[in-house]
Amino acid sequence: MSLLVVGTVAFDAIETPFGKTDKIIGGAATYIGHAASYFKKPINLISVVGDDFPSDAIQQMNDAGVNTDGLQVKQGQKSFFWSGKYHNDMNTRDTLATELNVLEDFDPVVPNSYQDCEFLMLGNLSPQVQMSVIDRLKNRPKLIAMDTMNFWMDIAMDPLKQVMKKVDVLTINDEEARQLSGEYSLVRASQKILQMGPKYLVIKKGEHGALLFHDDSVFFAPALPLEDVFDPTGAGDTFAGGFIGHLAYTRDVSFDNMKRAIIFGSAMASFCVEKFGTQRLIGLDKNEVDERVQEFINLVQFDIELVS
Amino acid sequence: MSLLVVGTVAFDAIETPFGKTDKIIGGAATYIGHAASYFKKPINLISVVGDDFPSDAIQQMNDAGVNTDGLQVKQGQKSFFWSGKYHNDMNTRDTLATELNVLEDFDPVVPNSYQDCEFLMLGNLSPQVQMSVIDRLKNRPKLIAMDTMNFWMDIAMDPLKQVMKKVDVLTINDEEARQLSGEYSLVRASQKILQMGPKYLVIKKGEHGALLFHDDSVFFAPALPLEDVFDPTGAGDTFAGGFIGHLAYTRDVSFDNMKRAIIFGSAMASFCVEKFGTQRLIGLDKNEVDERVQEFINLVQFDIELVS
Repeated sequence: MSLLVVGTVAFDAIETPFGKTDKIIGGAATYIGHAASYFKKPINLISVVGDDFPSDAIQQMNDAGVNTDGLQVKQGQKSFFWSGKYHNDMNTRDTLATELNVLEDFDPVVPNSYQDCEFLMLGNLSPQVQMSVIDRLKNRPKLIAMDTMNFWMDIAMDPLKQVMKKVDVLTINDEEARQLSGEYSLVRASQKILQMGPKYLVIKKGEHGALLFHDDSVFFAPALPLEDVFDPTGAGDTFAGGFIGHLAYTRDVSFDNMKRAIIFGSAMASFCVEKFGTQRLIGLDKNEVDERVQEFINLVQFDIELVS
Repeated sequence: MSLLVVGTVAFDAIETPFGKTDKIIGGAATYIGHAASYFKKPINLISVVGDDFPSDAIQQMNDAGVNTDGLQVKQGQKSFFWSGKYHNDMNTRDTLATELNVLEDFDPVVPNSYQDCEFLMLGNLSPQVQMSVIDRLKNRPKLIAMDTMNFWMDIAMDPLKQVMKKVDVLTINDEEARQLSGEYSLVRASQKILQMGPKYLVIKKGEHGALLFHDDSVFFAPALPLEDVFDPTGAGDTFAGGFIGHLAYTRDVSFDNMKRAIIFGSAMASFCVEKFGTQRLIGLDKNEVDERVQEFINLVQFDIELVS
């Protein structure tokens, strides 16, 4: 039984108050895959790149336990490219360039060897592509999680809502939750969104942590306070990777285990932002991950005995 | 051994997206006193009002267990008045009016009966007034906590830094921590501020919770996700009231007990914002407070067993 990750594998060029990169390896599925690989191997990847994509970056994924049989390499075409510049607060950014390239007509292929999919993580992609992956799986996975973004709410709200009906977990940020629901209060927003399909809603608040909503329950995980957030790119995807990786490893989709998955996801995201791109994620020691999780435990742990 | 609270007792006029008030009872010490009264009685109050201040509001404080022997009533003068309008996000506001009135030449008097002060909470006031209260106490309290705001950093940084050298706990918000330290990262900011005098630093982040820093330790408490934040006025003071109330009741100033105090403060603040002014704070049932604290426990509780 396997974990299937669908999303972009791409180039990014990033500018933050701390520095600037040329084209580096990025993409939602890259971050998700690397992060999930600390919990579960192998990971089956579905994505598309052009022939400009370096084979050693693919090899790096393979070395981490990511199976790239479902990664299409389009000859004569270029990989997806995004460029952005973060403001001083690191919470907002300007997009400088978005070149869809191979993404423009991406038709995801599900290799036969991927059909035993038990956990499916749909990284941020067009809702149509996300839907076609679901449709092409012969059996419904035990759990489907999807990430999306405001861009699709602007231009493809109907297809987005169709995919939402098919998934168990939706991960979006606070502004997207407000846009999707038309509610400012995240509690009210979650109530509306949980009626649109997903049984679990994760609202990512960046440096302010993440909320998990399910029925009338809510769980909150902070972000680890860091001396510096060097580059937030990919933090949300890395969070999703840790989250789905833990669920796929434990095969337990209870609310209590989702809480743990949120903590593991938050721990992975706290590494991601410490360096540019995937640098900090690759080659992490599992002990470092455990130490980071222990920091989360220390951060929020208190004991109060209520008499009543 | 007693809890002494110093701060404004005043009128506010508030506009939020949900409604608007005429002059209602406000002031830092009012919120602190009412919130602390759920944990510790009596509370000794030092403040000043004009003869326009309604005696039934003073009676209401007395009924809650707040001793007003140290409340000066200035005949022929008017009480401090603040008016503000919140933006839609409820995190930012415009000040429409600030009339200092009696605060202009406030000279705090410490009644003899207040000299057994064990816990001192200096609410937001000019650093000079805060300092004179410390100076007028014959014995140094077991714990001094102070709140302040950006306004004093703008016009009275030196006196502010002098008071900071005398206190154990400083409570400020995230923007103020940045202004005070010149550091954007709250971790770096806390390192600098903890070298200025306080041994404990509480950074209030409004709807994003609160951080407690001490030596190399950090604790985080979320704000409770609420359906609606009706009026944030006084939430920080209410937080401080619950915090100091719990410490004064338990007489335990360990880091572990400060964590609990943060949770109790956060619980009290979560009530404050549900209605205008002090409405929701007055006449709360202690069981309601305990239930709210239980909601905080449920919100952040998870169990992870790390193998390593």
